[in-house]
Amino acid sequence: MNRVLNFSAGPSGLPLSVLERARDEFLDYHGLGFNIMEVSHRGKVYETMHNEIIANIKGLYNLDDDYAVLFLQGGGHMQFAQVPLNLYIGGEAQYANTGVWTKKAIKDAGILGINYRITASSEDSNFDHIPSDAGFSSDADYCYICSNNTIYGTQYKNLPNTHGAPLVVDSSSDLFSREIDFKAKHIGVFWGGAQKNAGPAGVSVVIIRKDLLDRVEYNEENTPAPMRHKAPFASHVPTILRYKVQAEANSLANTPPTYSIYLLGLVIEWIKEQGGLKAINAINEQKAELLYKAIDESSFFKAHARADSRSLMNVSFTSPSPELDALFVKEAENEGMIGLKGHRLLGGLRASIYNAVSLENVKTLVSFMSEFERKNG
Amino acid sequence: MNRVLNFSAGPSGLPLSVLERARDEFLDYHGLGFNIMEVSHRGKVYETMHNEIIANIKGLYNLDDDYAVLFLQGGGHMQFAQVPLNLYIGGEAQYANTGVWTKKAIKDAGILGINYRITASSEDSNFDHIPSDAGFSSDADYCYICSNNTIYGTQYKNLPNTHGAPLVVDSSSDLFSREIDFKAKHIGVFWGGAQKNAGPAGVSVVIIRKDLLDRVEYNEENTPAPMRHKAPFASHVPTILRYKVQAEANSLANTPPTYSIYLLGLVIEWIKEQGGLKAINAINEQKAELLYKAIDESSFFKAHARADSRSLMNVSFTSPSPELDALFVKEAENEGMIGLKGHRLLGGLRASIYNAVSLENVKTLVSFMSEFERKNG
Repeated sequence: MNRVLNFSAGPSGLPLSVLERARDEFLDYHGLGFNIMEVSHRGKVYETMHNEIIANIKGLYNLDDDYAVLFLQGGGHMQFAQVPLNLYIGGEAQYANTGVWTKKAIKDAGILGINYRITASSEDSNFDHIPSDAGFSSDADYCYICSNNTIYGTQYKNLPNTHGAPLVVDSSSDLFSREIDFKAKHIGVFWGGAQKNAGPAGVSVVIIRKDLLDRVEYNEENTPAPMRHKAPFASHVPTILRYKVQAEANSLANTPPTYSIYLLGLVIEWIKEQGGLKAINAINEQKAELLYKAIDESSFFKAHARADSRSLMNVSFTSPSPELDALFVKEAENEGMIGLKGHRLLGGLRASIYNAVSLENVKTLVSFMSEFERKNG
Repeated sequence: MNRVLNFSAGPSGLPLSVLERARDEFLDYHGLGFNIMEVSHRGKVYETMHNEIIANIKGLYNLDDDYAVLFLQGGGHMQFAQVPLNLYIGGEAQYANTGVWTKKAIKDAGILGINYRITASSEDSNFDHIPSDAGFSSDADYCYICSNNTIYGTQYKNLPNTHGAPLVVDSSSDLFSREIDFKAKHIGVFWGGAQKNAGPAGVSVVIIRKDLLDRVEYNEENTPAPMRHKAPFASHVPTILRYKVQAEANSLANTPPTYSIYLLGLVIEWIKEQGGLKAINAINEQKAELLYKAIDESSFFKAHARADSRSLMNVSFTSPSPELDALFVKEAENEGMIGLKGHRLLGGLRASIYNAVSLENVKTLVSFMSEFERKNG
């Protein structure tokens, strides 16, 4: 067995120790004679694990009881819909447009027919930076950002000021990568799919400020809630799409993706073993610095993102030509490094250096880049 | 390691050979140096597997190109919403009410504000049978059933006649358990969560007749489609909830739950190795016959479902008292048999004898029941 070095943008590589533990428990979870995926989500064994993982997540982000941690399905795309369905109350939703993922969220806001406004955008320069001012105002129903833009390799260094309005953060590609002060940033909803920094595809960690659960007064009789008079969907939100239903059921309103949650839990434990989010972030900064330095000092490679907006998670760059980009990807694969092809919308190259990618892995990549430039420069 | 005998209603036990294969491939899928969950769903390795599994499912159910096989998230609860959102065109939706799962689907039809009618129900006798006539008519927008009622242990022996209207089948707890003639039964949408007969929780197999994808003319401009004039949601259906979006993208419109799909694929291969659905059904009939015979011949145990409606998947029964039911569950666990407690809404006992439960396992259970009756009868 020869494990590859995995620079995939998502789904992505998991820490080897996590995989080994999951493999060792595959036929026999904690000596109980079953895989955790083989038992009821309403039994004590599963629920104990489920609650431990929630407690660990609250510990990592230092969340108090004002916040609920949910495990939902459908990834970011489902959140593009669930956010307006649950948070829009007939005022104005505000979106900062920083790439494909915010564009998709904005599109669904349009489909749902809510009143929304794009308050800032970097589309004119092909999303190569984060706007310095998100343009949010305190009277917004909610203010929406994507904290890390996987395709363009940009990231908010600091989350923007909403002046008190609830901040909605799509953190799919920088979940669990750094400390976040939820209260100071007025975070209302914060989510990420597990498949980049935290496990396999199929589960999203959705953190919601509990007071927002009462924004919409759903009821059995389907009479429109008073605050929703301007929302075209009024009280017609299906049961499973209501945050409140899952919050009240501790994410057990329906069968959750139990095995994905189990693996998420193992990754969370691994993050704690690394020293938590502060320590993980310090390593992430080292990894990114090493890689950006190699790009900046080269006249061969060029980064897409502006220096002030560079992501610690996804480094999007190019060689001098599409042909050399393709050769780079091919030769890297021959050396056991996968996932380095850029997203089809941007082209070029991309190295995703999520939590599970070690500093050593990045050094190996940098050496390969240097050798590739020497041969082809 | 001592594997339990697993009679859980869901999530449920998987075939041991499937678990062993997944364990052996956990760090190294096909010698490629990664777990399949660690790579992009847009790469060749994943897509090849994805398409093979779809082809295998089409083979098992003998589906032609009029049907698309989708892998969706959110389980049955999401389908309770997606069915009306995609299939209702302003006429009447018809529901046959046979238990908790149809009641939940009916509730969401009400929340969405569509015009629906309950055409048959067995609620008056605590859902102990399948109504002999579903009461469906050819002019329905769609006709809705749950083919197997996990809680009450009832199952349609034959799917009902819709007189040509599209039949919608929630097959969550008898998916891949028997042959189905999709065309003869006018099946429009047919789904099941994997977590009972086909893998872990987190993925639903949704089979849809392609002509239904064009029922609703979604468009970017959000103008209501002409056929939807009576639907309160009109064209306000979020992107990810549209069957057509996922059908056109081969279920890759967003990141699918890749590892759940991988395990589903292994179970599908195992079903093929058993001889396919006809052979699986023959074994399922033997297992159920053995268990119902033991109950019927006993004066101690009593089945919930009427003889004409008994499920081959879930056998719901009682001992003479709740105290003896509890003792039964406890002593069975001591003997390594788990998952025998009845659903909280019905109480009593329940043995779920899905595909992965062998005839040998059922014999062991029957022996235990006989011994339990001898000691406590």
